[in-house]
Amino acid sequence: MGEVIATYRIKGKSGSFEKKAEGIALGLTVGSWTDLPLLEQEQLRKYKGRVVSVEEKEEGPWGEVKIGYPGHNYSNDIPAILTTVFGKLSLDGEVKLLDLEFSEDLKKSFPGPRFGIEGIRQLTGVHGRPLLMSIFKGVIGRDLTFLENQLRAQALGGVNVVKDDEILFDNSLTPFFERVRLGKKVLHDVFEETGSRTLYAVNLTGKTSQLRDKARKARELGADALLFNVFSYGLDVLQELREDPAISLPIMAHPAFAGAVAASPVYGVSYSLWLGKLLRMAGADFSLFPSPYGSVALEKGNVLSISHELTKHDDHLKRTLPVPSAGIHPALVPLLVKDFGTDCVINAGGGIHGHPDGASGGGRAFRQAIDAVLNGRSLQEAAETHEELKKALSLWGGEVKV
Amino acid sequence: MGEVIATYRIKGKSGSFEKKAEGIALGLTVGSWTDLPLLEQEQLRKYKGRVVSVEEKEEGPWGEVKIGYPGHNYSNDIPAILTTVFGKLSLDGEVKLLDLEFSEDLKKSFPGPRFGIEGIRQLTGVHGRPLLMSIFKGVIGRDLTFLENQLRAQALGGVNVVKDDEILFDNSLTPFFERVRLGKKVLHDVFEETGSRTLYAVNLTGKTSQLRDKARKARELGADALLFNVFSYGLDVLQELREDPAISLPIMAHPAFAGAVAASPVYGVSYSLWLGKLLRMAGADFSLFPSPYGSVALEKGNVLSISHELTKHDDHLKRTLPVPSAGIHPALVPLLVKDFGTDCVINAGGGIHGHPDGASGGGRAFRQAIDAVLNGRSLQEAAETHEELKKALSLWGGEVKV
Ligand SMILES: [Mg+2]
Ligand SMILES: [Mg+2]
Repeated sequence: MGEVIATYRIKGKSGSFEKKAEGIALGLTVGSWTDLPLLEQEQLRKYKGRVVSVEEKEEGPWGEVKIGYPGHNYSNDIPAILTTVFGKLSLDGEVKLLDLEFSEDLKKSFPGPRFGIEGIRQLTGVHGRPLLMSIFKGVIGRDLTFLENQLRAQALGGVNVVKDDEILFDNSLTPFFERVRLGKKVLHDVFEETGSRTLYAVNLTGKTSQLRDKARKARELGADALLFNVFSYGLDVLQELREDPAISLPIMAHPAFAGAVAASPVYGVSYSLWLGKLLRMAGADFSLFPSPYGSVALEKGNVLSISHELTKHDDHLKRTLPVPSAGIHPALVPLLVKDFGTDCVINAGGGIHGHPDGASGGGRAFRQAIDAVLNGRSLQEAAETHEELKKALSLWGGEVKV
Repeated sequence: MGEVIATYRIKGKSGSFEKKAEGIALGLTVGSWTDLPLLEQEQLRKYKGRVVSVEEKEEGPWGEVKIGYPGHNYSNDIPAILTTVFGKLSLDGEVKLLDLEFSEDLKKSFPGPRFGIEGIRQLTGVHGRPLLMSIFKGVIGRDLTFLENQLRAQALGGVNVVKDDEILFDNSLTPFFERVRLGKKVLHDVFEETGSRTLYAVNLTGKTSQLRDKARKARELGADALLFNVFSYGLDVLQELREDPAISLPIMAHPAFAGAVAASPVYGVSYSLWLGKLLRMAGADFSLFPSPYGSVALEKGNVLSISHELTKHDDHLKRTLPVPSAGIHPALVPLLVKDFGTDCVINAGGGIHGHPDGASGGGRAFRQAIDAVLNGRSLQEAAETHEELKKALSLWGGEVKV
């Protein structure tokens, strides 16, 4: 039986971290040690947490502490692991959970993405370049016709995926199953017209216990993919949706509410663990997070650490598509490819819908920008022969320095 | 259809908060406004968020901003509401969600505690005084006999509730259903011997979708109450357990992982909302939180605000028992009663098990302390005629200044 090693950053007095680490290793496992009879120590040894390392950082002072928690101590599910490694401890002063390292045997029991990057490429037919995604905009209070028009315009521009607004819930104007039916029809029509396939990620919402049946029925109705506000529910809920063979749809994890846990540099859980490693282990095919460029901006180091966790090689887990979001427009494409490579999704809302030629023009401008970057051309150069890109660059301020 | 009003504390530039508030009210609802044709404004008006108030605080500067979100916009469940009011916004810089005020019609659809304070008093037969609770200690890696002895010792000391350790999951040494059976037997025996009834809160753990059936079977086997690490799962999971008439057991919410969301003064959600109002609305009968006195200590203002949300009068919702925890010993009883009144639970781990006469002695010392306080006597005075209390006071340093 393996081990999970948790890395914490802890505020404390200089010289206090060894003792603090021992306190955590015992307090979150067997409780006490030195006062136990030797026989009991023998029996409990395999349940005892261990201090893996303690490092004191000059400033603060902060301690970076690694504690190993034996797999015997918990059932191998995310709620049990979070409760063990950051249950009581989350309430105990300035302490941040930076990382969890799972031994192979424990990690194997997590499913990871069902499709992963390669699977999504097969579904969309997009190879060797970033996927392009766009978001419905201003859909609260609107009817199915409004959604239909917006979806059609986005798909005609050549985006590969369209996602629901995460704040669009099941509602009488645009009920969940009606959206699925509509998406299937509109995107089939566009495919007939243009030969290109767009996926629609419908927002799976409602009471926790009903999500599974809703998702299964969505699949029966021909849904392409699910958007899911995993952090308003729970990571284990995501994992169970992923594991259900009767659902078997790509899952796009939205970061709504994730900042409540990850935003503080002092408390909570690191972005790389929350929006990166754990989302991937639980089975997200896509992970959205704020880009370092836009209005809702994350610090670049955080963003890259998320992306690294989603895409680094792993023997058991497929890779998750990073989706840096918010404030993305075509002029940012060279920077996005530089930062995230080709295995990512370029995702825009305003940068698609705000195009002078509407969402279709916005989509085309992005596709032109992506082609230019992959062919080693500057956007300015490409804009000379591509009208939509030209308009986008004059609106959003030319090429951003890479 | 009603409204949820969210109160945020936002860091920003002086004079920027009005605009920021407008941006939130639109951005998290209809998206845009002034550029919409008048006819569309008419159609969308009932979906538009409204700025209720904006207040700039001198220091920081900080803005305290209230935004109203129309009930039309979301399904009336906690995930949808959290996604709406603190989804994207949780990622948008230094912003903390302080409170949510639900209009009556929306609040009515939340169940609140099934038993509440009065219901728990009926189950335990404890009236007019705080309940006394204790916690299993050092049970990881131990077998059923060890648990049996500990449970018996605790119950014999007169505690009203015993809770599992929150880090005890389903495991081969002490499986969940075996613990339920054991608890029933031991506590029945103690009742036969002493005439006093103790409840045992068993830790409900495992995969999210299996919790309901486990809880139902636990009830069939005679379980008294459930301990639940709600924040490692999700508030909606708690609510669905509460709403299931086939479970119908008191639910004790453990604060494990709650600090990840609530501990930062700058990010996340306030303690009063997270461990107070939302837990009560979702249906917790007990809410545990760190006391202001112990090793894992919360600032007293936070603690009292949690307790206030759990117990203030409400036309629809029963009251939840506050359980200030960690570092509690008998000498603190006068202070606990002063801070929390009689409608609370006095909960101890080390303060019970660490008593020179063992857990039974610890329980008796607490009961003696509670009786003394309710009878207006000092602990010192009561200790003259109560051996266990006397030993506790000499161990834990006499009466704490009230
Ligand atoms: Mg959105
Ligand atoms: Mg504990």
